[in-house]
Amino acid sequence: MSATSVTRLYVSEPLGNAEVLKLGRDQSHYLVNVMRVAAGTSILLFNGRDGEWQGTIAKANKKAVEISLATQTRPQISEPDVWLCFAPLKKDRTDFVIEKATELGIARIQPVITERTQSTRVNVDRLAATAREASEQSERLSVPGVEQPVTLSELLESWPADRPLIHLDETGTGAPLAKVMMGRTDGIGFLIGPEGGFDPDEINTLNNHPATVAADLGPRILRAETACVAALGVRQSIDDLPPQTP
Amino acid sequence: MSATSVTRLYVSEPLGNAEVLKLGRDQSHYLVNVMRVAAGTSILLFNGRDGEWQGTIAKANKKAVEISLATQTRPQISEPDVWLCFAPLKKDRTDFVIEKATELGIARIQPVITERTQSTRVNVDRLAATAREASEQSERLSVPGVEQPVTLSELLESWPADRPLIHLDETGTGAPLAKVMMGRTDGIGFLIGPEGGFDPDEINTLNNHPATVAADLGPRILRAETACVAALGVRQSIDDLPPQTP
Repeated sequence: MSATSVTRLYVSEPLGNAEVLKLGRDQSHYLVNVMRVAAGTSILLFNGRDGEWQGTIAKANKKAVEISLATQTRPQISEPDVWLCFAPLKKDRTDFVIEKATELGIARIQPVITERTQSTRVNVDRLAATAREASEQSERLSVPGVEQPVTLSELLESWPADRPLIHLDETGTGAPLAKVMMGRTDGIGFLIGPEGGFDPDEINTLNNHPATVAADLGPRILRAETACVAALGVRQSIDDLPPQTP
Repeated sequence: MSATSVTRLYVSEPLGNAEVLKLGRDQSHYLVNVMRVAAGTSILLFNGRDGEWQGTIAKANKKAVEISLATQTRPQISEPDVWLCFAPLKKDRTDFVIEKATELGIARIQPVITERTQSTRVNVDRLAATAREASEQSERLSVPGVEQPVTLSELLESWPADRPLIHLDETGTGAPLAKVMMGRTDGIGFLIGPEGGFDPDEINTLNNHPATVAADLGPRILRAETACVAALGVRQSIDDLPPQTP
């Protein structure tokens, strides 16, 4: 609920002591024309590997920005190993899912095409850009990976046997999600169906897959994007419980 | 995650057996011009008191729609007695909070003006309309009340002594929200601060108020609207646990 006013930027380059970072044309343009940085402006940088670094803009023109790195402000930490598999929605609602999942620390985002998926054209580059911006605007030190879309069958065929896939089951036969989370909050995946739900064949396939766990979010029917955020909120909150709590 | 394709409409009139409902100009216009209903179309109605009723459009013109009520499809149920107090955000994000809080069963929505609140002009009629539409599009049988905005001081002065006010505390001193919820999920309120958080005086006032309970949503900094949805998701999921679970 707090927001920093210092620009945070994800870069792919290594970050380290006394280095000078030369940004490419796209990021230089973004910093100068959109974020309005100038020589002397302080900036925070992260690359998903080397923690967060504070730097100062040494040179700023529209084609080439150079940043002098000063000190590491935070060591690298990794996000929990949680994957979100969801059926793409309309543009705004998909963007919303990506943004919120990023804030809530998801490691990997997997679009899944199901029988009733509304939106089967998925622009992965755009989703990845949304994830990067959401990472910059939250306090994350990494950017979630956004995968190419797969069908539900493809997802299940290649799903790792040792990773529970928590399937939010609107038919109401699953265990309460809070109870499922009390067993395990890391090394898992969530699967959220489309508006209109999975079709009966898909539900059957899901129920017969060895890695799936049906879970229920409560008595109310939720829109898909609400279910995503609520489920990730439950995961984060149960993960936050002290170890002695059952 | 499922959506009905039958139009659901909130009305203020009583609903009962064999009644004919004559809608006013605004709702008639909405049904005919926006929802494209015609004579013979089936429709579901609720008013927050009499459950959900199925009816059939008996007469449809732009100024006066009449509906013949047939059968009660669901008895009235009440939502949990949970209030959401939040500092208004920019328009889209406020709308989002109202929509998601409605889906997640909130009974009452209270805008609260804090020192750092971004948006102090609150159009309560518009928020109430958003809540009504979200109720119609979810499966709710009631519409949450949207109150006139108050300042944080006014909220705390008139706050009922027997209603815990769960204050999502980004300073990290609160108990994990899931643990707080295991104590009580009903007859409570949530208070979510603005982007940038409460100011130090406000945090001090909150910590010294007898009804407040500081809670923490986990290690990540969340945007205000994300915190609202995540917190209500946690509440719903813990409320969904069987009674024997601690």
